[in-house]
Amino acid sequence: MEHLKYDKGTGDEANWLVTEKVFDERFLGKCEAVFCQGNGYLGVRHALEEAYASETRDMFVTGTFNQFHEGEVTELPNFPDVTGMELYVNDKPFCLQKGRIRSYDRTLNLKTGEVVREAEWEDPEGNVLYFRFFRTVSMAREHALGARVEITPLNRDVEIKLVSGINGTVSNSGAQHFCEGDKRLYDYRYLEMVSETTGSQVTAGLYTTHRFQKEGQEIEPKLLPIIARREIKISARIFVEKGQKLTVEKLSCVYTSRDRKYAEETDREAVLADIRKSGLETVKELYRTGYARLWEESRQAWAEIWRREDVRIDSSDAFDQLAVRFAVYHLNIMVKRDDNRVGIGAKALTGEGYKGHSFWDTEVFILPYYLLTEPGTARTLLEYRYHNLQGAREKAREYGYEGAMYPWEAAWITDGEVTPIWGPADVVTGKPIQYLTGMIEQHISADIAFAVWQYYTATGDEDFMERYGYEMILDTGKFWASRIEWKEEKGRYEITDVIGPDEYKEHVDNNAYTNYLADYNMKLAQEAIDRLRREKPEVYARLDSRLGLALLETRLKERRPRLYLPRPEGDGGIIPQFEGYFDLKYLDLTKYKEASEVLTIYNDLNPEQINACQVSKQGDLVVLFYLLEDLFDEDVRRRNYRYYEERTLHDSSLSKCTHGVVANDLGLSEEAYRFYGGAARVDLGQEMRSSDAGIHSAAMGGIWQVAVLGFGGVRVAEGRLRIHPSLPESWNLLEFRIVWKGSPLYVKASKESLEIRNQGEAVEAEVAGKTVTLESGRNVF
Amino acid sequence: MEHLKYDKGTGDEANWLVTEKVFDERFLGKCEAVFCQGNGYLGVRHALEEAYASETRDMFVTGTFNQFHEGEVTELPNFPDVTGMELYVNDKPFCLQKGRIRSYDRTLNLKTGEVVREAEWEDPEGNVLYFRFFRTVSMAREHALGARVEITPLNRDVEIKLVSGINGTVSNSGAQHFCEGDKRLYDYRYLEMVSETTGSQVTAGLYTTHRFQKEGQEIEPKLLPIIARREIKISARIFVEKGQKLTVEKLSCVYTSRDRKYAEETDREAVLADIRKSGLETVKELYRTGYARLWEESRQAWAEIWRREDVRIDSSDAFDQLAVRFAVYHLNIMVKRDDNRVGIGAKALTGEGYKGHSFWDTEVFILPYYLLTEPGTARTLLEYRYHNLQGAREKAREYGYEGAMYPWEAAWITDGEVTPIWGPADVVTGKPIQYLTGMIEQHISADIAFAVWQYYTATGDEDFMERYGYEMILDTGKFWASRIEWKEEKGRYEITDVIGPDEYKEHVDNNAYTNYLADYNMKLAQEAIDRLRREKPEVYARLDSRLGLALLETRLKERRPRLYLPRPEGDGGIIPQFEGYFDLKYLDLTKYKEASEVLTIYNDLNPEQINACQVSKQGDLVVLFYLLEDLFDEDVRRRNYRYYEERTLHDSSLSKCTHGVVANDLGLSEEAYRFYGGAARVDLGQEMRSSDAGIHSAAMGGIWQVAVLGFGGVRVAEGRLRIHPSLPESWNLLEFRIVWKGSPLYVKASKESLEIRNQGEAVEAEVAGKTVTLESGRNVF
Repeated sequence: MEHLKYDKGTGDEANWLVTEKVFDERFLGKCEAVFCQGNGYLGVRHALEEAYASETRDMFVTGTFNQFHEGEVTELPNFPDVTGMELYVNDKPFCLQKGRIRSYDRTLNLKTGEVVREAEWEDPEGNVLYFRFFRTVSMAREHALGARVEITPLNRDVEIKLVSGINGTVSNSGAQHFCEGDKRLYDYRYLEMVSETTGSQVTAGLYTTHRFQKEGQEIEPKLLPIIARREIKISARIFVEKGQKLTVEKLSCVYTSRDRKYAEETDREAVLADIRKSGLETVKELYRTGYARLWEESRQAWAEIWRREDVRIDSSDAFDQLAVRFAVYHLNIMVKRDDNRVGIGAKALTGEGYKGHSFWDTEVFILPYYLLTEPGTARTLLEYRYHNLQGAREKAREYGYEGAMYPWEAAWITDGEVTPIWGPADVVTGKPIQYLTGMIEQHISADIAFAVWQYYTATGDEDFMERYGYEMILDTGKFWASRIEWKEEKGRYEITDVIGPDEYKEHVDNNAYTNYLADYNMKLAQEAIDRLRREKPEVYARLDSRLGLALLETRLKERRPRLYLPRPEGDGGIIPQFEGYFDLKYLDLTKYKEASEVLTIYNDLNPEQINACQVSKQGDLVVLFYLLEDLFDEDVRRRNYRYYEERTLHDSSLSKCTHGVVANDLGLSEEAYRFYGGAARVDLGQEMRSSDAGIHSAAMGGIWQVAVLGFGGVRVAEGRLRIHPSLPESWNLLEFRIVWKGSPLYVKASKESLEIRNQGEAVEAEVAGKTVTLESGRNVF
Repeated sequence: MEHLKYDKGTGDEANWLVTEKVFDERFLGKCEAVFCQGNGYLGVRHALEEAYASETRDMFVTGTFNQFHEGEVTELPNFPDVTGMELYVNDKPFCLQKGRIRSYDRTLNLKTGEVVREAEWEDPEGNVLYFRFFRTVSMAREHALGARVEITPLNRDVEIKLVSGINGTVSNSGAQHFCEGDKRLYDYRYLEMVSETTGSQVTAGLYTTHRFQKEGQEIEPKLLPIIARREIKISARIFVEKGQKLTVEKLSCVYTSRDRKYAEETDREAVLADIRKSGLETVKELYRTGYARLWEESRQAWAEIWRREDVRIDSSDAFDQLAVRFAVYHLNIMVKRDDNRVGIGAKALTGEGYKGHSFWDTEVFILPYYLLTEPGTARTLLEYRYHNLQGAREKAREYGYEGAMYPWEAAWITDGEVTPIWGPADVVTGKPIQYLTGMIEQHISADIAFAVWQYYTATGDEDFMERYGYEMILDTGKFWASRIEWKEEKGRYEITDVIGPDEYKEHVDNNAYTNYLADYNMKLAQEAIDRLRREKPEVYARLDSRLGLALLETRLKERRPRLYLPRPEGDGGIIPQFEGYFDLKYLDLTKYKEASEVLTIYNDLNPEQINACQVSKQGDLVVLFYLLEDLFDEDVRRRNYRYYEERTLHDSSLSKCTHGVVANDLGLSEEAYRFYGGAARVDLGQEMRSSDAGIHSAAMGGIWQVAVLGFGGVRVAEGRLRIHPSLPESWNLLEFRIVWKGSPLYVKASKESLEIRNQGEAVEAEVAGKTVTLESGRNVF
């Protein structure tokens, strides 16, 4: 049975709805993550109002990192819960495991950001009730969220009891990040819980209140306060006649001392007082204005987002349209547009997976979306990396290098490298597992430099470059110049003992992806030195005094040309993914490629055995071709794509999307289309456990990339914009909006025609192979 | 509907069974606590194998205290769980909220310590299965526990999936005391989790394994390991034909670095290695010998306990018999007989309430049981208080007194006072609530001295007294000599600003209970000085050099006679509970006394208002009459009993049992009988939430006290044993065993006759009002 359904819908709702058709307590995690709501500040999994033993009830607030214990790494703490509501019918708990579900569905409306759940339920005593649950995390005011519950007894009068409030007993799979905190009840109506994280001393203020209506008329049932350890709740009993509709609204807000407004404030008492003041004011206002107003504000904010960022796909499979909207939805709830102290987690704010840490996923898979739709947001994200420079420098020192060696995993801006070094012992051998990525997956420094230059290319933002960008490029370039190793016997520089994007291969030498990106990073540094000396002497002077540009220039000139860059080898013209790749054992991967789950190879082989075979988690060369397409001619790229794809399991959520883009570049549009579907199904597929720990942020960027960079043919290449659409067979129309050097461009592509509406000033571009000027207004090709 | 049932049963099982007749997820806490299993080392709540959102799945190990955060007090941590077992029928979870329960009961067999649950369940697909769950926490080997699950599909073949192992995501209502720890799998069969508490660095080693049988034949299904954060489990799938019985056994053990054997060991690495070795050896042995052997060993240990400690009551209400066995059951699982570093918590090891801390409950309500049945255990418990002397001395210094001022709440022996000082803010006013008991409920020091002397009276244990007992009596006597306050204007010493046993009255002066007990404590000290100087000069010299006995003697002689001791006043001859009591407002308590729950007075009055009324949580004077019966003649005691009982809500679980004993002393045997039933129903009653945070340890001692000290008329009075049975109307026979000065005495009392069989040497006693010698063998009265 298909649990998830993607309704084509009708009218305004067409292709905006993701629906769960079946209640199944085994798969609560899937929809908690896929239906997660948020606004970049808050992320709230869609755990149901009533509790189930198998739920993962998480709410995260960006940037509030805490370390549970010295033996663990810092992570985003799960906040005290305000989503839970115990409901009782004649004193018996409402629970969908009991009685009989007569009808059920739960729908995320991507257009409005609201989740609506409907159930007609017959309890074990034969009472039949119709429930509707609405929940919104406001896109308009980031601190606010709310729910509305409608309960209509259909065949008998019943008494409904509600127990609801703030529950601080939740944890991160058992790790508790908050102290018990203070609980208050104001006016017998507004509930407050103020807690502090155990180590980082982040103060969290949670507020909630309830409103009641019967048949649309406000009622005020007696609220009894319930105080327990880590809990403050109210309980209320309401008699509801058959056919009457009881409405309960729960309106909540969250403030923390990590909020951007307190970034410069050092007086902790003043911050606490302000959190209390803001929280109480907001929850009182929410009480006055109610859920409908909260929803309407949020809907309007979403309408504005969709006006700018919707991607429209007319496909014979309506799922294609829904998938890209699903991606854009998540890309909009994962980012804090105005706070350069926070990044985007690998699971965004939708689950405990990867602990809220940022990886190269941001720059390579997610940033392109913002770069081309919201350049200001892209800048914020790159400024986050600038703030991480100190940690990157410390990491370089620690490893004996110079410059900036970016943390493989990043959390709070002052945390530096947060990749765990020692994992739990291998359960069978008892040997501690060493996490190597933080030590030897080093390409991230070049990925960030690459992203900085992409940003500059697309925006021409000199201010950013002068303040942040050049320094990032130069200091990462400096890192590589110190990192590469001179091999006297070969007369060349090499990069040994690394992990490339393909994490199935550890301790490899001269990984093609890493070497080429390092070379590119050094090239950017070299060019930056030239340009700054020539055009911006004051910036040159400042950075020279900080980084020593003269010495760096000498080194770059001497070393970069002698860095070994693997070339196609032999008759097949295959570039070795790393040195010795061709000596590895070939393995027929059909069995694993056809499996419905990923990582099934581990059922047969251990990591050491996998390391010895020609099997990749994702294709290193394919990512290289995607980022630096001009390194090799199309024939080389096609041969290598074919060769490595056969050997790639796509066990990383980052894999299919890059393959989709590159396949399209190579004219393999039906193969690209299959990868589009595959990328979309990383989270939206029927594999019901794939998203338990959260959605895959990079896959969200990836879905959009296959659509817009792949089929839309948009690329930030060699200093200019390229647009070269090429739609797959089943698509009739693709429409999207990008921003280039400040000019919004509306692109409408069919198989026969291409129209670009420029709402800004004229810009140069390469369109469908020709260099053109996109004038203001309508351009037809 | 009555959820709990007390089967009269038949044959050997008669009056040994407590049965839950109805599955109701709202009331899981009740049976988790009431059916809690243990052995004094371990306490394991009877959370069901399958998980429910409303469960509290706790396992405690005595003495393993940890402080979650500096803002909280130390508590017994909830250990990683080994009781949970996920069961799936054709991949759908077994859960009694779903489908239809055709029959259900869960029974604690007090005789064997085993809990058996039976359910015939029809799943939502129409598969009908018969389940039987057996669980034992071994009374024979304290580290071991085990479960057996039998599953028989009745109408169709099914596939059963089991997911089971060790789950470290549990917490104390959200507070996590353990670090993540190491997980290991040995021989693909034995699961290990070794964790450490976050602050106290107590190492915990958990081990579990599984055995499978089909139709009684061992089978070995493939076990897949499951590793997640804080979890190590295995999963197995077994096809079971209709009518076949699948048996799964889960056998587990627990070791910690607080185990007595490591008491002197300072090498942490050696302890860790030994924990791992012991755990693995034990779990392997459990695997070899299986659940039946574990059960049989435990059953034999229980048989030995019941042989010594059963109390037999032939009553027209079979519940009376069951109630006292229930009490004896819990009295046997709450105590660690051989470890003088641990006390007994107010909820024993059955719940998170009171955090595992020891109160005066131990000495006044629980200790008499051990004193008269297992004097060696009573000594261990008093040695625990001796180990607490250092903390008691520090507390006295802190408050400006001398001697030993015992902590109101005690945890680990070196912790000193652990009563929280500041509670959470009042939720309405926002003012922090100050806990006064740790500061001004001071009678505990005298209660402990009283218990020491009772122990000596009943055992004549000179060794104990010389090593520990005299020092405790003298140093608490020294405390009181420094504590009492000279009132020049009244020409007397007073004790002001205290809380007596009746905690509804705070900041009172000259609380009768406290003053009389302080006087008694000083009297014991005075007599001890005399005796030691006279009979044991070397002990005198040692304690003199430590405590300064000469000065103490002078002080006691000068001060004690001038301590104000309230006397009966006015025509009514009522002793004021404290100064000014008669000025308080009288309140008709009928409404609250008739309520089915306790503490309902708080629905109408706040603590300040209660403080201003003649209303008691428990009767101070009644406890005084119970402990020191010779202070007042029977007429005074009767008048005061009547006066205060009218004003007492019995909102404390300590109240009804003392009233039961004293009512019997006063010849009010039917009233005493009602109090017996009331004390028994503190936990065994149909109020389904009363035991959520754990059973009431003191009430367990109290039930036994009303039976044996009340109706059995046994008392350690004025230096000798008194036995004066007086059965209530509905009882025909009361049989029990006590130990007096080493001689086991079997007492068999009916309304007409009394027989005492002495299995030891002849002892003096007062029996039914006459001084007699109980000769070896049978004595009939």
